[in-house]
Amino acid sequence: MYELGVVYRNITRAEAHVADQLARFGSATVHEAMGRVGLMKPFMRPIHAGAQVGGTAVTVLLQPGDNWMMHVVAEQIRPGDVVVAAITAECTDGYFGDLLATSFQARGARALVIDGGVRDVKTLGEMRFPVWSRAISSKGTIKATLGSVNIPVVCAGALVHPGDVIVADDDGVVCVPRAMAAAALEAATKREANEGEKRAKLAAGVLGLDMYGMREPLAKAGLRYVD
Amino acid sequence: MYELGVVYRNITRAEAHVADQLARFGSATVHEAMGRVGLMKPFMRPIHAGAQVGGTAVTVLLQPGDNWMMHVVAEQIRPGDVVVAAITAECTDGYFGDLLATSFQARGARALVIDGGVRDVKTLGEMRFPVWSRAISSKGTIKATLGSVNIPVVCAGALVHPGDVIVADDDGVVCVPRAMAAAALEAATKREANEGEKRAKLAAGVLGLDMYGMREPLAKAGLRYVD
Amino acid sequence: MYELGVVYRNITRAEAHVADQLARFGSATVHEAMGRVGLMKPFMRPIHAGAQVGGTAVTVLLQPGDNWMMHVVAEQIRPGDVVVAAITAECTDGYFGDLLATSFQARGARALVIDGGVRDVKTLGEMRFPVWSRAISSKGTIKATLGSVNIPVVCAGALVHPGDVIVADDDGVVCVPRAMAAAALEAATKREANEGEKRAKLAAGVLGLDMYGMREPLAKAGLRYVD
Amino acid sequence: MYELGVVYRNITRAEAHVADQLARFGSATVHEAMGRVGLMKPFMRPIHAGAQVGGTAVTVLLQPGDNWMMHVVAEQIRPGDVVVAAITAECTDGYFGDLLATSFQARGARALVIDGGVRDVKTLGEMRFPVWSRAISSKGTIKATLGSVNIPVVCAGALVHPGDVIVADDDGVVCVPRAMAAAALEAATKREANEGEKRAKLAAGVLGLDMYGMREPLAKAGLRYVD
Amino acid sequence: MYELGVVYRNITRAEAHVADQLARFGSATVHEAMGRVGLMKPFMRPIHAGAQVGGTAVTVLLQPGDNWMMHVVAEQIRPGDVVVAAITAECTDGYFGDLLATSFQARGARALVIDGGVRDVKTLGEMRFPVWSRAISSKGTIKATLGSVNIPVVCAGALVHPGDVIVADDDGVVCVPRAMAAAALEAATKREANEGEKRAKLAAGVLGLDMYGMREPLAKAGLRYVD
Amino acid sequence: MYELGVVYRNITRAEAHVADQLARFGSATVHEAMGRVGLMKPFMRPIHAGAQVGGTAVTVLLQPGDNWMMHVVAEQIRPGDVVVAAITAECTDGYFGDLLATSFQARGARALVIDGGVRDVKTLGEMRFPVWSRAISSKGTIKATLGSVNIPVVCAGALVHPGDVIVADDDGVVCVPRAMAAAALEAATKREANEGEKRAKLAAGVLGLDMYGMREPLAKAGLRYVD
Repeated sequence: MYELGVVYRNITRAEAHVADQLARFGSATVHEAMGRVGLMKPFMRPIHAGAQVGGTAVTVLLQPGDNWMMHVVAEQIRPGDVVVAAITAECTDGYFGDLLATSFQARGARALVIDGGVRDVKTLGEMRFPVWSRAISSKGTIKATLGSVNIPVVCAGALVHPGDVIVADDDGVVCVPRAMAAAALEAATKREANEGEKRAKLAAGVLGLDMYGMREPLAKAGLRYVD
Repeated sequence: MYELGVVYRNITRAEAHVADQLARFGSATVHEAMGRVGLMKPFMRPIHAGAQVGGTAVTVLLQPGDNWMMHVVAEQIRPGDVVVAAITAECTDGYFGDLLATSFQARGARALVIDGGVRDVKTLGEMRFPVWSRAISSKGTIKATLGSVNIPVVCAGALVHPGDVIVADDDGVVCVPRAMAAAALEAATKREANEGEKRAKLAAGVLGLDMYGMREPLAKAGLRYVD
Repeated sequence: MYELGVVYRNITRAEAHVADQLARFGSATVHEAMGRVGLMKPFMRPIHAGAQVGGTAVTVLLQPGDNWMMHVVAEQIRPGDVVVAAITAECTDGYFGDLLATSFQARGARALVIDGGVRDVKTLGEMRFPVWSRAISSKGTIKATLGSVNIPVVCAGALVHPGDVIVADDDGVVCVPRAMAAAALEAATKREANEGEKRAKLAAGVLGLDMYGMREPLAKAGLRYVD
Repeated sequence: MYELGVVYRNITRAEAHVADQLARFGSATVHEAMGRVGLMKPFMRPIHAGAQVGGTAVTVLLQPGDNWMMHVVAEQIRPGDVVVAAITAECTDGYFGDLLATSFQARGARALVIDGGVRDVKTLGEMRFPVWSRAISSKGTIKATLGSVNIPVVCAGALVHPGDVIVADDDGVVCVPRAMAAAALEAATKREANEGEKRAKLAAGVLGLDMYGMREPLAKAGLRYVD
Repeated sequence: MYELGVVYRNITRAEAHVADQLARFGSATVHEAMGRVGLMKPFMRPIHAGAQVGGTAVTVLLQPGDNWMMHVVAEQIRPGDVVVAAITAECTDGYFGDLLATSFQARGARALVIDGGVRDVKTLGEMRFPVWSRAISSKGTIKATLGSVNIPVVCAGALVHPGDVIVADDDGVVCVPRAMAAAALEAATKREANEGEKRAKLAAGVLGLDMYGMREPLAKAGLRYVD
Repeated sequence: MYELGVVYRNITRAEAHVADQLARFGSATVHEAMGRVGLMKPFMRPIHAGAQVGGTAVTVLLQPGDNWMMHVVAEQIRPGDVVVAAITAECTDGYFGDLLATSFQARGARALVIDGGVRDVKTLGEMRFPVWSRAISSKGTIKATLGSVNIPVVCAGALVHPGDVIVADDDGVVCVPRAMAAAALEAATKREANEGEKRAKLAAGVLGLDMYGMREPLAKAGLRYVD
């Protein structure tokens, strides 16, 4: 599945302004806009609550317990990128800490999404460098085996191609394929258009049952009320 | 076990003031007061720390990946209720977000307890609508299959009847059967009565070994000290 | 493996100032300084973020669902100690709450590290008593069966002897054997010596690839770049 | 939720012949016949493959790490019963081994279903005493704390009342409430009626798409084929 | 990531004889031959031990708790295929039983690999239809929502394109991209070439330390022996 | 905690005949005989049912994803040994397959107990080489980093010193410290002495309640019967 030992330097990134706009909608809305696909597994959690990020994916494939390629991927980061790190086996070791974060941040990375562990999380919080990870762990790694950079990877169950848009917030992480980004943005925009109106109605006590016209289909499906 | 496709509109709720008073004691004390039963599994966690809630249960049984019945249960909420949502299979999908929370809050719900996932958690925090859940996930749901409202449900390992008292805080979620609520309140009150005195003694350096008279039973059980 | 029903009163503690200094480095650096060993499993998490603690271990072996020995260990605490609690089987019950914390704090304990559950976590936060645990749970315990105090224990996968140094922070918990504490401190000090300089370089955009001289070994390992 | 320290001696059991007939259909068919409810969680697995059992539930509520009540429930077993054991907290200890199995078998029990661990599994296989459990573990238990016998219990997420029918096989464990047993049997019988005919058609290469008339609804839902 | 509601009818399959030959090597050897990539997560287990299968992938993307597309994929099966089923969320429901197996077998499928649950496992064993799955569960599914057939899917962490080679045995499941299949076969053949000789030497008591010439690199890495 | 890069060649093994006799009792009885301690976690499972093994421990500490030290430990095996392999982090990779098993068997090893993964499990079954492991996985490992041989290790939660007795069967794995082996054997022998008599009584319908004299203590604890 994976090509090992290779770094693709030229990738085509989704348009920056599309990534920025998708980020504003958040992962849940974007996921719905895409037809309810593209999500990473819910074990991917932010190390600190409150961050909401969008960016273009640079990908890295790591070996278990080995963070050598994190230094290789650093060089390929451009401002506005989100690094997406996959591992060839399940591993919770701490691949990433404050020094790498300093380097990533200097290169313009907006966040790290890693299907493994990270450490120095207090410092990462102070640096305001957002990370979504499977685990937090002090366990150190070695530098012995090659992976790859900017190949398609499977991260936490989601397929990510270099250049795709990543949207991450407190609800999780979603990947929008580059070719779908504009359409997803349009769909998300439509989806949110009348959210304010809906919210106002619901806040006023109108029921979703009535607002969405659900009473008839529910009755048709056989729902009965007992007093 | 479950009756499907039915909504019970008339349920008998525990007395509001009992639920309020139980809430003040918190889940650990109430659980002890009941004889150490009635707890949901510890995977049920608050999405934001610090909330402490008590209320009367309205229950909803959901199908995996399907939140149709969340709109049905909304209509049955009365001020002071806590919605308890069970699912017929293990599922971490995001059944509940800010729009449903707006509706629940407008109906007077105090909290949601759900053996599944929720999303829009940042907004839920801003709305100060407390949720205890098994997971956080952007994964959307469909509206295709009936469950039920206000039948007895098993939520995170605990049996909950409509009208029971739910007490939830940072330590977890406990269900107090309506018929036991007054007795549980009395027991909890007694349990807490001399807590202040105990705390003062312990803070002063008195040992639990002496305060609780444990030295003799420990010696009897065979405990020996080695210098 | 374990000797049951015994309390060792005289243990040799690592030097207090060494524990204090190790604490400042944090668990990740100390773990590296020891050659990447001695860590507890990453399921051990702080109940509140931000604490960074070092101290000398007093150990307690508990039975599942039974916290009797927590009162026994309290008497053996001296100022600067960290209580390390292991259990003879996997158990998430709430062994420890605000009353025991009051007692531990009065005896001078700096923290609790427990391979089980704790409760009253909101109050523990207000008391500023740090805890690292496997779980949070209201589930109460009984007092019926003996364990031991100050025997070597396996806590979350790490072997801890009484008197060892425990370093715990947001990244996890590491145990430094007493005999290695001075050497670990020296190694950690060296490790951190030029961290500031490295950080400055990375912040200035220098790549780890260059700073650490990785380009040659990567090329030797076969890494190739594709444009 | 639970009444502790009580043994109900007189329970009303479902009819034996209904339990026997339901057993023949297996857990999947019975679960479908009930409207897809009543299943225990899939972590409940047979300790040996191949057993297919039906019987009437006698229930026991156990405390974590304590199997005292297993001896109490033994006395309440009648021929044709299945013992259903729930625990007040998550626990994988070995509550049950060959001696208890000898006793249960002598009393006429057909199987044990336990939301905990068991041991002596090789001998249990030789005795042909079927067990469905959450875990296998040598870990012994104590006899110190009361639970209850023949109260309603939640076992692996399913609510079981004494006298309900339990059907268990390699696919899992399902509980059929006593009042629903006859109707479930009727539904299961209907469900299976034309299974042989269906199987023959499918074996002959007829597609479910055609046999079940799915092509039209799939097209209506928007399915499109690309050559 | 995923295109929903579409069935690709024309896919290019890897050559049958390559799949057959790869199957003989087993998943571990093939995985090594590919450079240690392409494996599904180890939670994918055979429902019965002993099967060793190779075939060409037809893929299906399912919705949680919904097996509608299993009937759609059946029509696309050709002799020698292995059906690879992914789900848009984590789900352990029983998507597949003896009727679908009859249909798949009639179409010439060699196995099912599914990142979800299956049922009727005893009958599947009697039919000798091999399945690798995440879970076994009686839980039934509905037929309400579209997925897709023969799009690239992520199954248990591995990316599978239609037409790729799947090799599965008691050790796990590996996916060999169609374009790599011939090269993987060659590498696997080489790898196994002198296995018999190695095995004979090891059986005669020769140590891997000597046979693989490890003593020097170990000494260089600093290994020391203490008598 | 761990000394890295060292191989202890001279270890003192428990007496062979004691290990042999303990093996006959099985892990559950031996664990009870030791006072209910010394067990590995229940996730340690035999890769094939039915084996019952006892032997003296040679230990090896491995790095995640690296099986280099498995070749080093092979040389230290003597007839009657059980290899106990611990890993410095959680890892399910396949560290051990048929070639290493051939070597271990040639050296006289009776079994492998590993807190990681193994592969070639079908062949291992044919070779009748018993293994207890955390996982089964085709995932290969590298040979890059030193661990140690014959140092004390923590394996699946149990502390094992080289030379200790390991008893493993279908119920799990227990470690008996060398110094306790004779006493454990005596206690196990006593424990089993009247098991036959007990079994006969229970088979004849005598209740444990009467045989163990439990009725009075149960009544004292407050158990009440309801007709």
